[in-house]
Amino acid sequence: MEKRPLILVTNDDGITAPGIRKLIQVMKELGDVVVVAPSHPQSGKGHAITLDATLHINKLKTTNPKDQEYECSGTPADCVKIGIKEILKRKPDLCVSGINHGSNASINVVYSGTMSAAIEAGIEGVPSIGFSLLDYDWDANFDRLEEYVKKISSNVLTNGLPDGVVLNVNFPKISETPYKGIKIARQARANWNEQFDKRVNPMGKEYYWLTGVFENLDGGEDTDEFALEDNYISVVPVQFDLTAHYFIQTLNTWKL
Amino acid sequence: MEKRPLILVTNDDGITAPGIRKLIQVMKELGDVVVVAPSHPQSGKGHAITLDATLHINKLKTTNPKDQEYECSGTPADCVKIGIKEILKRKPDLCVSGINHGSNASINVVYSGTMSAAIEAGIEGVPSIGFSLLDYDWDANFDRLEEYVKKISSNVLTNGLPDGVVLNVNFPKISETPYKGIKIARQARANWNEQFDKRVNPMGKEYYWLTGVFENLDGGEDTDEFALEDNYISVVPVQFDLTAHYFIQTLNTWKL
Repeated sequence: MEKRPLILVTNDDGITAPGIRKLIQVMKELGDVVVVAPSHPQSGKGHAITLDATLHINKLKTTNPKDQEYECSGTPADCVKIGIKEILKRKPDLCVSGINHGSNASINVVYSGTMSAAIEAGIEGVPSIGFSLLDYDWDANFDRLEEYVKKISSNVLTNGLPDGVVLNVNFPKISETPYKGIKIARQARANWNEQFDKRVNPMGKEYYWLTGVFENLDGGEDTDEFALEDNYISVVPVQFDLTAHYFIQTLNTWKL
Repeated sequence: MEKRPLILVTNDDGITAPGIRKLIQVMKELGDVVVVAPSHPQSGKGHAITLDATLHINKLKTTNPKDQEYECSGTPADCVKIGIKEILKRKPDLCVSGINHGSNASINVVYSGTMSAAIEAGIEGVPSIGFSLLDYDWDANFDRLEEYVKKISSNVLTNGLPDGVVLNVNFPKISETPYKGIKIARQARANWNEQFDKRVNPMGKEYYWLTGVFENLDGGEDTDEFALEDNYISVVPVQFDLTAHYFIQTLNTWKL
């Protein structure tokens, strides 16, 4: 019998989020699952790591005593680090992060705890995927995603990924129309046009809430945003070599 | 008389750090300076933004009443967002972040609050540079960096940067030997080999400190790590389009 792959599951919405529960369910069909996820929501935490505070892990009591689930006090990137180095003590065959409640397409990838966990696993040399559903509703229905999550994950287990590449998978919000399929895409150039909601606290001091309006600045038809608007699931290969290689030659002509 | 450029200065070590004080001093020679920096250290905070808490800004009392300095309760990325949208109310001509106390070369770029601030400004369409010194000492001497910080910043003010590109500048630790000069480089493939320092608190509960050993996995002689080891200042053009474009064609051959 072939050895079952070891799969590390994490997210940024916290270990009790419906999105990660669905992901755990699907991954159990593919391999042996260990969950290491934040004990509390970590949305927007980007690639933060905990350098100035202590980390705590806690093994959860599960219905099936064979299930291995750990909550960690840290960020999604911390979860991956401590999961690989302290809990598993070896590299898993796959790391999956999500399913996020909300988009991580286009520029959202840089703010995303979900994707930073996936990227952290990539840095550690583990094939890795982040999954996100364009629906912030805690009670969103993740059922229709199952077959695609399984197919994409199986492909990564079979084919592997090149060193330095992880996958960013986003699903359109569920509508009456079935998904049209999967499109390989590039990250759209987009931006959040921030609006700071200024208020005054009971002590008379001003404070702000960060809000904003999403702006797709990219007219390309090969982007993740375009695919998602057309009811396709987008798959973007993401790298953590941030070098703008094409600009090196120009920089060499500067008087530095 | 030509209009003086408007320069936004920020960092991740906090507004009182010697590194940002030096950067403010140099920038005043180049333009009108507005400082919006974290009120407390934010190292390792990556591209975190504050979605689940309120933000506070506080104008500091400065010796020269013309100086504009604001401390912000949020992350470095928050500082840039609130600086541009709420304090300046217009795009500055340049954003500089740092000078960081410690390296942001190679893989450190993804964990770095300093670089995330610079990248955030780039996302907002502002030419932007992150500066870092490979010395964690709070009392490190930043004087020798002045001429290079000024030269690189002047070049960016004059030449601009393409949309989507910011500069990651790292300085070798000061030694008896003068710097050899500036090298344009690519980000080295590197990793932190984490070691979790496990301890027991007075209540008998285990906890961890995240520590690690840096590993340069890249033998290339065109990397930032190679330049820095050779006593050159490294300049890496960094982009926030994370797409691994080269892998799109292969992904299209997968059975998805």
